[in-house]
Amino acid sequence: MPHDATAMPPPSGTPRTVINRGAKRTVRERELAYAILDEALVAHVAAVVDGTVRCQPVSHWRIGDELFMHGGVRNGLMSALRDGAEATVTVTLLDGLVQARSVFHHSVNYRCVVAYGRARVVEDIGEKNAAFRVMMDKFAPGRWGAARPPTDTELRTTLVLAVSLAELSCKQRSGPPVDDPRDLGRAVWAGVIPVALTRGEPQEDVPDPSA
Amino acid sequence: MPHDATAMPPPSGTPRTVINRGAKRTVRERELAYAILDEALVAHVAAVVDGTVRCQPVSHWRIGDELFMHGGVRNGLMSALRDGAEATVTVTLLDGLVQARSVFHHSVNYRCVVAYGRARVVEDIGEKNAAFRVMMDKFAPGRWGAARPPTDTELRTTLVLAVSLAELSCKQRSGPPVDDPRDLGRAVWAGVIPVALTRGEPQEDVPDPSA
Repeated sequence: MPHDATAMPPPSGTPRTVINRGAKRTVRERELAYAILDEALVAHVAAVVDGTVRCQPVSHWRIGDELFMHGGVRNGLMSALRDGAEATVTVTLLDGLVQARSVFHHSVNYRCVVAYGRARVVEDIGEKNAAFRVMMDKFAPGRWGAARPPTDTELRTTLVLAVSLAELSCKQRSGPPVDDPRDLGRAVWAGVIPVALTRGEPQEDVPDPSA
Repeated sequence: MPHDATAMPPPSGTPRTVINRGAKRTVRERELAYAILDEALVAHVAAVVDGTVRCQPVSHWRIGDELFMHGGVRNGLMSALRDGAEATVTVTLLDGLVQARSVFHHSVNYRCVVAYGRARVVEDIGEKNAAFRVMMDKFAPGRWGAARPPTDTELRTTLVLAVSLAELSCKQRSGPPVDDPRDLGRAVWAGVIPVALTRGEPQEDVPDPSA
């Protein structure tokens, strides 16, 4: 069963999700945190495995109040999450390079979510199939139904994990540089260089007919 | 003193950096791992702090065989690293969305480095200043000397950490989808949609003269 989403604390509202440094950049709206999770194509998942903090990128997607990921059963980090280790999932969108009039006020604009939660193992084949459909709608929209659907064997041999988003923090910086008043007259360009992950020209794969 | 770079193991060459899953995607060249670190504008730093795995984005830069980051002394994660906690630093570049002829062979092209190491605290003001110059050359090239230089106070109140890159793993995927032979004749587009972090039109900050 999915996690119970009722009575969830607001983002950045528990002792370990409160933002101490740069508190003015705290985000308390769950909708904004979810929009960040939905826009980002990579999440970093961390947990302790055999005494070492492991942290790996995953292609994540969200359904309701859970963050989904999949992996092989031979992956040590995924196995540890399956076996009950708490996951720390961090999703970061870099939005801009902030160039100030002093070296020290250079900064970056970003949006970031950190979630702490245990993973639920998605066992049911039907739920797994439905989860992959949502993943496809995010990473390859319009292709579900065109690409060959997963077989039961493919579904069964893939570990699918759903991490609760009940406890998360969210922080962002946006806008222009914040300079010291004494530096405002300095003859140096200041502003923001926006950055974004953009898609290039699709490269079609043409099978080799001689292969 | 910087870490001793002699006798470093090759990437992915120690018991905890060997790639078990998808071993064919292992990268063993240190130069390639360093190129990934240099290109990426965000690193995710993870460590255990008070029993919780913390993982936060940082603006990192590399000097020799160390990865540099800075933060406030009130930042719990940075303080833990200063006090000796081992850091796990993960840097991921997403290069493409791989669209296959079956749902299950959809994938992503990426390059990823994971480093495990203790942090050295950069105390010397001269070394700190030199480190920030390298940071500026990465994030705001050409602006060192134009923007106001750091003051001793700014340097002193900022924590600068250098994490050893002695132990790291590196993994990448590139190229077209790998489909099952039975799916190659399927009438569905297959290929790669390249993605990259790109810079937009700079937005100049014009101070309000009435402020």
